[in-house]
Amino acid sequence: MIILGIDPGIAIVGYGIIRSERGLHTVVDYGVIETPKEEMTAVRLAMVAESMEKIINKYKPDDVAIEDLYFNNNQKTIIRVAEARGVLMLTAIRECGRLYEYTPLQVKQSVTGYGRADKHQMQQMVKTLLKLDKIPKPDDAADALAIALCHAQYCRSPQMKASYGETKFK
Amino acid sequence: MIILGIDPGIAIVGYGIIRSERGLHTVVDYGVIETPKEEMTAVRLAMVAESMEKIINKYKPDDVAIEDLYFNNNQKTIIRVAEARGVLMLTAIRECGRLYEYTPLQVKQSVTGYGRADKHQMQQMVKTLLKLDKIPKPDDAADALAIALCHAQYCRSPQMKASYGETKFK
Repeated sequence: MIILGIDPGIAIVGYGIIRSERGLHTVVDYGVIETPKEEMTAVRLAMVAESMEKIINKYKPDDVAIEDLYFNNNQKTIIRVAEARGVLMLTAIRECGRLYEYTPLQVKQSVTGYGRADKHQMQQMVKTLLKLDKIPKPDDAADALAIALCHAQYCRSPQMKASYGETKFK
Repeated sequence: MIILGIDPGIAIVGYGIIRSERGLHTVVDYGVIETPKEEMTAVRLAMVAESMEKIINKYKPDDVAIEDLYFNNNQKTIIRVAEARGVLMLTAIRECGRLYEYTPLQVKQSVTGYGRADKHQMQQMVKTLLKLDKIPKPDDAADALAIALCHAQYCRSPQMKASYGETKFK
């Protein structure tokens, strides 16, 4: 199956596409969508939507996995990121039809087996699991691949039958 | 000109459409979009987008005005509302092409002339300015009409030439 992982943002959105078959994972593509900060929010949101539509229509993922936002102290930033996340969820559900949400803790635990893993440990595991020569850059793309891997792991677990955080639309 | 005002939300989105000509404002329509809380977020976002597309295509507003979110202590709620606001901004910019953002303070000041006006004073002014028999219900619809009126007032002011918060897309 093809899985698209998304690391939401407004200035930079990470995406990572993997193929996962019987516990073997390979990279299909990864990268970032960037929007210029001089543009007004609505135009940046339209750019994010348009780019994500192209990615989904190009790679036709079976499932899309997106990370939940975690609370921090910068409310201004989190509002802008949440607006972009809303647009990304809308795009995923309309273009792909199957969307799964994971918390940062779930991503860390499923990829590294350890909820307190730091960013570098996560990136090392992404490199190892996907048999890459080096850590994918930038960080947002590596994070998106981790989210895709998290979903691949959940798909193989018996609990997945209970379908955590799944949204089907089509 | 026809103005659509939007009061963003995920459980309930207020909308109000007014016609504004040379300082005279009349109501075209108002109401709310509601989404069931049992549904997953992505499905609720798709419902919000689909309903707002229909409203814009039915009334063909010249301009859309949307309220900014204000920070509060409930981060969980504000993230869900911001996700919906992102979807509403995307829909407005794609379907109408002209979007303006106003803070709650700007809406209060322009509608009541007083930044600390309470909800009831705001609703009374909406009723008076639109020559209605009674205050529009529910509150979210009245708030959306206030946002539309705020934009109508800004359009007549000389500062409007500086185009506060305007996003043109088409």
